[in-house]
Amino acid sequence: MSSDVKPLLALSMGDPCGIGPEVVAKSLTRPLPAPCVVVGDVAVMRRAVAACDLQWPVAELDEPEQARHAPPRCIAVWQPPGLPAGLAALPMGQVHTAAGRAAIACIEAAARLTLGARASALVTAPVHKQALAAAGSRFPGHTEMLQALAAIDGVEPEVRMMLGNDELRVVLVTIHVSLRQAIDQLSVDRIATTITLAHRAGQRAGLAKPRIAVAGLNPHAGEGGLFGDEEARFIVPAVARARGTGIEASGPFAPDTVFMRARAAPGHPGEFDYVVAMTHDHGLIPVKYLGVERGVNVTLGLPFVRTSPDHGTAFDIAGRGVANPSSLLAAISMAHELCGSGLR
Amino acid sequence: MSSDVKPLLALSMGDPCGIGPEVVAKSLTRPLPAPCVVVGDVAVMRRAVAACDLQWPVAELDEPEQARHAPPRCIAVWQPPGLPAGLAALPMGQVHTAAGRAAIACIEAAARLTLGARASALVTAPVHKQALAAAGSRFPGHTEMLQALAAIDGVEPEVRMMLGNDELRVVLVTIHVSLRQAIDQLSVDRIATTITLAHRAGQRAGLAKPRIAVAGLNPHAGEGGLFGDEEARFIVPAVARARGTGIEASGPFAPDTVFMRARAAPGHPGEFDYVVAMTHDHGLIPVKYLGVERGVNVTLGLPFVRTSPDHGTAFDIAGRGVANPSSLLAAISMAHELCGSGLR
Repeated sequence: MSSDVKPLLALSMGDPCGIGPEVVAKSLTRPLPAPCVVVGDVAVMRRAVAACDLQWPVAELDEPEQARHAPPRCIAVWQPPGLPAGLAALPMGQVHTAAGRAAIACIEAAARLTLGARASALVTAPVHKQALAAAGSRFPGHTEMLQALAAIDGVEPEVRMMLGNDELRVVLVTIHVSLRQAIDQLSVDRIATTITLAHRAGQRAGLAKPRIAVAGLNPHAGEGGLFGDEEARFIVPAVARARGTGIEASGPFAPDTVFMRARAAPGHPGEFDYVVAMTHDHGLIPVKYLGVERGVNVTLGLPFVRTSPDHGTAFDIAGRGVANPSSLLAAISMAHELCGSGLR
Repeated sequence: MSSDVKPLLALSMGDPCGIGPEVVAKSLTRPLPAPCVVVGDVAVMRRAVAACDLQWPVAELDEPEQARHAPPRCIAVWQPPGLPAGLAALPMGQVHTAAGRAAIACIEAAARLTLGARASALVTAPVHKQALAAAGSRFPGHTEMLQALAAIDGVEPEVRMMLGNDELRVVLVTIHVSLRQAIDQLSVDRIATTITLAHRAGQRAGLAKPRIAVAGLNPHAGEGGLFGDEEARFIVPAVARARGTGIEASGPFAPDTVFMRARAAPGHPGEFDYVVAMTHDHGLIPVKYLGVERGVNVTLGLPFVRTSPDHGTAFDIAGRGVANPSSLLAAISMAHELCGSGLR
């Protein structure tokens, strides 16, 4: 992407029967940091616009790049070939095979746009696990699907989950396993890779030397070995290895104060740009503490920027036009920033 | 304590060479919810008053109860018998045997006042572990000392650490052990006892039915057994047992959102009064996230209310008059509230 071309963000519409199309439509009527193209079904997006009582027309594009030059006050949608027919007639808030198929096709098409550099980043609206399964997908969610699409010679990239909001960015060493298994999964390699991915994300976002704090696992970061040895065995060597490659990593720090120290808020400049957390909940408790509306999920390690809102398809309120687009808007802003076009 | 008598709060001065006497002196010049008596060395308190450049005199009491009727604008100090001589001549910011002995004597005297119902609650200024050890104490800190003082026929009460601020109150099932050991320590009994102690604290503070949320241990509170079985084995039965005794307990809840849900802030009424957390850092990360100045440490399970600020002796700044009394003031307010005299 040359510096004189504005980035283009690709938004996959998500499950047509969930709130994805509605939050996408609402978001596109707000001030955005860059042009966005919705990768979705035109009729589904028109239904969402109507449900939200938005007065903006849906513009159907022949090519996604046309979104850069779309007229103001319209929602630019590029419909990838091969979507199932009749999607806009499906009842809202239910699992449907066709809906799952359409969601998958839109993710794949949007991911190919970013892999082919036709779009700068991918923002994914939520999908439903059961709909994916009903559609025959072997992937439980976006991340696994995107890893497979990004594979080179069958080798998938190692990825990490980052969760961020206005104040705090946390990258997780372990995620969806029991706490015991999370402890078992810790290794110097695994932690060092996480630090490197956090560093690269920071550099991509324009920071020359991202300040990366590494949280400990145990109370008081082990209190010098009194409360556990994982710090000495895994974290200290991983931080040293990262520093050896020029990364501004530090720690291990006591988990109970490192997030407070990293928090960047008015009158409270954060000491660190990213915190690497050993466990799912050490990292997510502070990110979510002030409210989930603004939380953004980022997949680090893919060959492109990918963000998503921190909520699901919300079948219980789908189709009623009441879904809150805050988290998707935050995901759009974060995608723009992380692809190197934003300011911090 | 009959309802027409105002409670009296006993404040132990802490280590004479740390910031304890200074934050005690500063706090007593602020508006307080109840009369306070400092249990400490009169000369040490006079030195602290001078260091902080406070214009209030120190009034030496013959009996601690006289603090109820002390004249306004004075710092009421009751000096227990048997303190070492020359304490006010010790250099600040250093470990001293005599300082440790004095700190211990003041804690014991203040605890006996509360055990004997001459004071309503105990607020402890910080002590130094090494000074306690130098003074020959077999106790690493306040909690163990107070448990021993409260023992009946040699049986010490089971206690739990609670940490709270304006927004959130968290009671910990496990504390100063490695995360692996913390998981090993979980049992139905241990969790149920923690819930009961949280319930009693809430009732003592005037809540008829304290709403107690119990956090899970694993991501998503185990995701139905997919991410660990501690919820099913220990937490679910403990919650059921507590509910069987009429306690308003619920959970296990996903650790990453339960603290956000319990948070009580302007425009955000909390869903719960107390959160029981399985591990030190699950509980302390959210309490400390917005800053440690207002954090208060409470020991539940003693036969009296005991609170303390969430900081140490801060030897590096002791004697300079610059220590911040916010956390001690919060500890005084919390003590007043928890002894049943405050409003929520």
